[in-house]
Amino acid sequence: METAPLLLPSDTDVYQGNCPTRAILNRIADKWTTLVIGILAQGGSRRFNELKRTIGGISQKMLTQTLRELERDGLVKRTIFSEIPPRVEYELTPLGQTLCAPISALTKWAHDHIEEVKYAQARFDSKQA
Amino acid sequence: METAPLLLPSDTDVYQGNCPTRAILNRIADKWTTLVIGILAQGGSRRFNELKRTIGGISQKMLTQTLRELERDGLVKRTIFSEIPPRVEYELTPLGQTLCAPISALTKWAHDHIEEVKYAQARFDSKQA
Repeated sequence: METAPLLLPSDTDVYQGNCPTRAILNRIADKWTTLVIGILAQGGSRRFNELKRTIGGISQKMLTQTLRELERDGLVKRTIFSEIPPRVEYELTPLGQTLCAPISALTKWAHDHIEEVKYAQARFDSKQA
Repeated sequence: METAPLLLPSDTDVYQGNCPTRAILNRIADKWTTLVIGILAQGGSRRFNELKRTIGGISQKMLTQTLRELERDGLVKRTIFSEIPPRVEYELTPLGQTLCAPISALTKWAHDHIEEVKYAQARFDSKQA
């Protein structure tokens, strides 16, 4: 039982590199996934360039890759509107919506504890100097 | 308000690449952080090699770096026992313990939805073939 993660039944071991649950956890415990889901969680659909503009620092390639993986995992739905030029929009699927609460909790933690973390960092850095 | 993340007051914008909360979110929304915190959340302290053995696929370098960043952020406490050879142990700080619930929720989501995700992946892959 020592290696079983909190709250999980003992038939799952996300600590094994080849566990399927671990592969999913790798995707959702990811900074870009967190930010993309965070925007789509606000409801409605978004265009690629809208997402790219909103998420500071994300490259075209990383956003393309993140959206494609999220689509493959069934978390994001991609719709192509046959206009000229074609319009492509992204929105959360019902499965993706179930991920909003855990991801919100993580983002909220970062917001609530930023001052404590900054204080710890300054203390750590002063000891290294 | 369009770019404000769910549940966060409007004075924070984790979507700005240079926002301090974004830097913290980048650390905690990370697969290795999730796995390290998940083990330490079980209570007590762990030695480096114990962590390395438990987390399949993590390199010595990545574990060293993850633990150092978590220590700098005030989430993990590192204790050196002056023995020969010196023993080094890691445990969660009280601040690190507050991160257990959100991280557990993410891990639990991965466990609870693995079948739906695998089904979506198979469906996606069959369309690409």
